[in-house]
Amino acid sequence: MRKVSFALAGAVLVATLAAGPVLADGHLEKAVEARNAQMSLYAWNLGMLGGMAKGAVEYDADKAKAAASNLAALTALSQQGMWPEGSDNFALEGKTRALPEIWTTYPAVSEKGKDLETAAARLAEVAGNGLDALKGGIGDVGKACGACHKQFRAPK
Amino acid sequence: MRKVSFALAGAVLVATLAAGPVLADGHLEKAVEARNAQMSLYAWNLGMLGGMAKGAVEYDADKAKAAASNLAALTALSQQGMWPEGSDNFALEGKTRALPEIWTTYPAVSEKGKDLETAAARLAEVAGNGLDALKGGIGDVGKACGACHKQFRAPK
Repeated sequence: MRKVSFALAGAVLVATLAAGPVLADGHLEKAVEARNAQMSLYAWNLGMLGGMAKGAVEYDADKAKAAASNLAALTALSQQGMWPEGSDNFALEGKTRALPEIWTTYPAVSEKGKDLETAAARLAEVAGNGLDALKGGIGDVGKACGACHKQFRAPK
Repeated sequence: MRKVSFALAGAVLVATLAAGPVLADGHLEKAVEARNAQMSLYAWNLGMLGGMAKGAVEYDADKAKAAASNLAALTALSQQGMWPEGSDNFALEGKTRALPEIWTTYPAVSEKGKDLETAAARLAEVAGNGLDALKGGIGDVGKACGACHKQFRAPK
């Protein structure tokens, strides 16, 4: 009888957590983690390309092409589920820099995403064609990053 | 003259850092961060697909197809620079679970990577064709994840 009560209490607890505030199951934090992972991979590949463009790393056509192709593929991924309502920096203080404007002005942010995808696709086409070609294509990618961050990301 | 000296000192400092111990610039940690980001995005997309396959989330053809396409694209990315020598769990204790066997048995790990890419590509072809098709394709992806982790990742 005692065991049954404990089991019931456990079931009630689980049901309560499931029905509780959205934050209880951590799905907003998981979404933040996923989009941060996506941004990390942008930064990783762009870092390589930027290093070559600035002359900090020697230009290598194959590596440049691979990094730019990565970036193009990453920017073209579906971000479904990564931006749920309530995952802004007001609701999740200290856990994200995503401004509420992402949601209040939606779909404006999608336009910025498209600009990045377009710039990355163009860069992927030319990044293997020499340092000058890389330099010529990387600027628009940087601009697209900056434009979105300026409007939709809180400063550190 | 003074300006020139400072510039020279700066140049020497940069050269020293570049030639210094590999760990000094944190590039191993950055590589670990990048591959962790890649794994996070695998998990994010696979989590969605697994949720549908298990019945925890309702099957949605478009979402399943998008998640599986994401996974296929992610597994096909170049991982150049992500696995530098010295970034195993012995050298970077507590910062990674990547076993030294990745490097001592190289290129065995690449075969595992190819298996995952193949399984993910097959899943992307069928994931939008109904729940049974999803269930039929997801098993091989899980097996490929597990096979690599078993051989090359330390337990938690």
